[in-house]
Amino acid sequence: MSAINSPCIIPIDDPDDPRIAAYRDVKERDLVGREGRFIAEGAVVLRTLLTASRHETLSLLIAEKRIAGLAPILEALPAAVPVYSARQEVLDAIAGFPLHRGILGLGQAAPMPEPDPLLAGLGARATVLVLCGIGNHDNVGGIFRNAAAFGVDAVLLDSGCCDPLYRKAIRVSVGAALRVPFVRIPAGTDPVALLERHGFAVLSLSPAGAVPLAALRRPGRAALLLGSEGPGLPASVLARTRTVRIPMAPDFDSLNVATTSGIVLHHLAFMAEPESGVG
Amino acid sequence: MSAINSPCIIPIDDPDDPRIAAYRDVKERDLVGREGRFIAEGAVVLRTLLTASRHETLSLLIAEKRIAGLAPILEALPAAVPVYSARQEVLDAIAGFPLHRGILGLGQAAPMPEPDPLLAGLGARATVLVLCGIGNHDNVGGIFRNAAAFGVDAVLLDSGCCDPLYRKAIRVSVGAALRVPFVRIPAGTDPVALLERHGFAVLSLSPAGAVPLAALRRPGRAALLLGSEGPGLPASVLARTRTVRIPMAPDFDSLNVATTSGIVLHHLAFMAEPESGVG
Repeated sequence: MSAINSPCIIPIDDPDDPRIAAYRDVKERDLVGREGRFIAEGAVVLRTLLTASRHETLSLLIAEKRIAGLAPILEALPAAVPVYSARQEVLDAIAGFPLHRGILGLGQAAPMPEPDPLLAGLGARATVLVLCGIGNHDNVGGIFRNAAAFGVDAVLLDSGCCDPLYRKAIRVSVGAALRVPFVRIPAGTDPVALLERHGFAVLSLSPAGAVPLAALRRPGRAALLLGSEGPGLPASVLARTRTVRIPMAPDFDSLNVATTSGIVLHHLAFMAEPESGVG
Repeated sequence: MSAINSPCIIPIDDPDDPRIAAYRDVKERDLVGREGRFIAEGAVVLRTLLTASRHETLSLLIAEKRIAGLAPILEALPAAVPVYSARQEVLDAIAGFPLHRGILGLGQAAPMPEPDPLLAGLGARATVLVLCGIGNHDNVGGIFRNAAAFGVDAVLLDSGCCDPLYRKAIRVSVGAALRVPFVRIPAGTDPVALLERHGFAVLSLSPAGAVPLAALRRPGRAALLLGSEGPGLPASVLARTRTVRIPMAPDFDSLNVATTSGIVLHHLAFMAEPESGVG
């Protein structure tokens, strides 16, 4: 089964084997307390976990037939990380659904940084995203993907957002959720005050925003606030921040929030000339 | 059950009732020949079908408990359109999955226009999207949503694209797939020649494109070509068109194709100054 020079490859024949309990019924498990553990799916995401994230890899579970093709990943693994291997049908029985990708990893999230030191440590030109009430895994994953593509320095999430380390959010992000630093804004903390304390100009995206995106100039430290597609950002936040809109067709003013993040991040990265006098 | 002044509301108690056969197991049905019929889900999409599309509504199927709330839609229906009503559990049994939205419509697609007269009829400033090999329903739906939001005049699809009138594509598009005109490029037709014949400047999106998007100026008639996320556009197409790239982080050059369409369409609509001398 394994002619390659890799860490211990442990065959699993029984879906109920206790050694792979963390992989069992991952769809269900996603929704309960995971104590900082997460599941990474697919070779691209696994490579990100192993090479470009702060998080620890606890183990891998791989379809027997994929072991040879994944040799470059396996050879780079620390020797202490167990690699479990199973036939496709055993793998499907463990995961609880047909696992076409044939490769799962179990990670342990690194401790989350505190918002203040994280923001203080960013450069004079920095971009952070602040997500408010975004509970859809596809949207959070899509936003992280855009954040990585356009070099966002950090993502802040309020308590209404889902966990970026949900399996589906990681998958949709193509691993970016493991790569881009993120923090939770503690309940009761005013995000606008937090950001302004660190010299960030706070930009709130809203269909009724005052400034059309095309006219927006880039602050040195820019914080981009995004709300969920239905309710959007609270009026109390809009009233205290610079509001920005993406003009749309009058009879169809509906953009997906992840797409919105991509449009604004591209603008901030390449289109918006810097404001003078912003530190 | 129905105190409102609406067209005939027909109670359905048996999931096997032949009158609602078209709604049965819609997830499976999506994948077989549908002869121009399609399923529209949810109130927003239904309203689009009834008020802002060229397509015909054949019937509706609605959860009994939602009839009163949907009165504005139902009252606007032509009297000849039957409205079937069922208890939630019967509805779920018909659809083959829990139908939380509680409202389905059956549509009949209008005949598709021919590419040549469609393109000839557009204005001197026009934007069309050309999709090549995009087979993912989420992506096609997301692209149509952006197309509607940014006023795209038409979408052209090659034979490798999935049908924008698949149930899921319509849903993800928030009804835009019913609103934005689209045509199939006949097999064997050269899309670049077709577009150039009608005076369109053809812009191909590619990670290795020659022009960064931020430097792109808007042609009067702009055709934007998008390929699938893996293989992208064929080299033979790239060689004959103006290639455009969205610069990304060197270690994460990965954008979703629907997000890409949103970024480029926003640029073409609001950022790119017109070229002089383009007719």
